Amino acid sequence: MLTLYHCADARSFRCLWALEELQLPYELKLLPFPPRWRQPDYLAENPLGTIPLLVDGDTRLTESAAIAQYLATRDGPTPLSVEPHDADYGAWLNWLHHGEATLTFPQTLVLRYRRLEPEERRLPQAADDYARWYQKRLEEGVARTLSDGRHWLCAGRFTAADISVGYALLLANSLGMGDDFPPVIAAYWERLKARDGFRRAKAAQKAAPKIETL
Amino acid sequence: MLTLYHCADARSFRCLWALEELQLPYELKLLPFPPRWRQPDYLAENPLGTIPLLVDGDTRLTESAAIAQYLATRDGPTPLSVEPHDADYGAWLNWLHHGEATLTFPQTLVLRYRRLEPEERRLPQAADDYARWYQKRLEEGVARTLSDGRHWLCAGRFTAADISVGYALLLANSLGMGDDFPPVIAAYWERLKARDGFRRAKAAQKAAPKIETL
Repeated sequence: MLTLYHCADARSFRCLWALEELQLPYELKLLPFPPRWRQPDYLAENPLGTIPLLVDGDTRLTESAAIAQYLATRDGPTPLSVEPHDADYGAWLNWLHHGEATLTFPQTLVLRYRRLEPEERRLPQAADDYARWYQKRLEEGVARTLSDGRHWLCAGRFTAADISVGYALLLANSLGMGDDFPPVIAAYWERLKARDGFRRAKAAQKAAPKIETL
Repeated sequence: MLTLYHCADARSFRCLWALEELQLPYELKLLPFPPRWRQPDYLAENPLGTIPLLVDGDTRLTESAAIAQYLATRDGPTPLSVEPHDADYGAWLNWLHHGEATLTFPQTLVLRYRRLEPEERRLPQAADDYARWYQKRLEEGVARTLSDGRHWLCAGRFTAADISVGYALLLANSLGMGDDFPPVIAAYWERLKARDGFRRAKAAQKAAPKIETL
């Protein structure tokens, strides 16, 4: 049985979305955000204190994009994976990493220094610097790639790469940055939101009971 | 033929190191840092302006940890890869992502707001916040994992996971943060530096000619 530790609409949404796309059975543990402060017994499960954590028997993963890749490939090829013999294998790996390392991390600086930190510790300059960084990478990377009319990032179909990058668009909306989407990104975001797997993941986090102790 | 666009000791060192470990033939294009300012014709090759770029025929990758994984797996299993049937497959994927997304990105904030920005734009608070973030993740993740006496992060041998995380230790040293290594990390760093592939990568970037135009 797979167990996913998750906070609503946090990075771990990538994992929940992948689980739902693949229709795998799983247990969802929904935590308050950020768990390192609001659910300190979580540190016994994941000493990093970060979300997500996926437990699959003796295997434990904490990186959301790695989890999407893991779920897509652990039992052989799936509709979410692109295999090494495919011409888009390199692109697939690249988008998997890009979604988190290049797009989401900068967004978390906006979240932290505009919203989460107490007033006296906010840093508008850092938030603006990384809002710009994210926006520029989105335009020169994802938007440029989609500008040839393709519906999905690689391999001519929806894959885990779209989950990795798609989450960055979800977070952009949470941060009020969704109005700055170039038209090809806005259309891509509509396609992503319309997927059954995305809707089921949204419904699953809404239905999950809040837990008091782990 | 593989072509790697690289800046000395930048993230692209992961790719150079993987190329040397695998003893693959490649062409190295050494650029001044940061290329988006100091080598603007690079933007025609990589509109993101980021380093690295790996070109392999029609395949182009820009994420350093994805490139390490790509090189390790594109032609089937290699000594740097861990395959899905291996018990450490999940751990391998996780460390590949962790090295960049959780360890290196925070380090780049230290670099930016302590060193690269002009004096009036420096942000000691952001640099300190992310120096602490990186240090805590290093202790609770890599150091905790190595504390059982293992020499390498997973699979009982050196893999691309060690390249991804090892680069974060190289960058920590460049940033003057190497003195804070817990003892197991300091010993791991010595093992990493002693590898022939690491030494050959260091020698290759030293020997590469500086290029004026691409």
